[in-house]
Amino acid sequence: MSTTTPADAACCLPTFQGPLTSEEAEPLAAVFKAVADPVRLRLLSIIEHTENGEACVCDLTEPLDLSQPTVSHHLKILVDAGLLTRTKRGRWAYYAVQRPALDEFGALLRRQRAAAA
Amino acid sequence: MSTTTPADAACCLPTFQGPLTSEEAEPLAAVFKAVADPVRLRLLSIIEHTENGEACVCDLTEPLDLSQPTVSHHLKILVDAGLLTRTKRGRWAYYAVQRPALDEFGALLRRQRAAAA
Repeated sequence: MSTTTPADAACCLPTFQGPLTSEEAEPLAAVFKAVADPVRLRLLSIIEHTENGEACVCDLTEPLDLSQPTVSHHLKILVDAGLLTRTKRGRWAYYAVQRPALDEFGALLRRQRAAAA
Repeated sequence: MSTTTPADAACCLPTFQGPLTSEEAEPLAAVFKAVADPVRLRLLSIIEHTENGEACVCDLTEPLDLSQPTVSHHLKILVDAGLLTRTKRGRWAYYAVQRPALDEFGALLRRQRAAAA
């Protein structure tokens, strides 16, 4: 009986299937660009840890100490990248993490933390 | 006996241990910034698939159709982010992928490809 951790399973596969063309590299770079910002990483981490698993922009301005238009701008980038979902209910839109998309970032972040420790 | 794929193993862990502070978010954003560029993703993919697992800047200008200073600039960013190693031998520096760091990006890229297919 053997168990396989994500890191073990990843060890023997190439990261890229072959040299990327510009056309292949551009959409991938766009996803990384969405999380290449401290405010957007903080937004993802705050929304993931809210009590109901979702938050409206009204919940997010205070912890980040940023204006509503600025927070809305960052939220839109995360929705467009497929990392958050947006559901309109009454006056507000509610944002939740898009589970499968975020899980792969989780593996990467745990590795980063381990390397930094 | 059970096997666990990277995606399965990642499913039940939170991506973030809790809400990130600015100080925690900034170094993570810096790593993502390193790969948030199509030229740098192409460089990683080309170097990973060279015959000896390494390449000098002289091997990389032609496939990317970019000048040596531009390629060197992007290589430096990838070395600083811990995604490439740099070894000086004679006249040239040789770049190779930093295996454990790149493996976690691999899991993420495979998921992206599956979602796009």
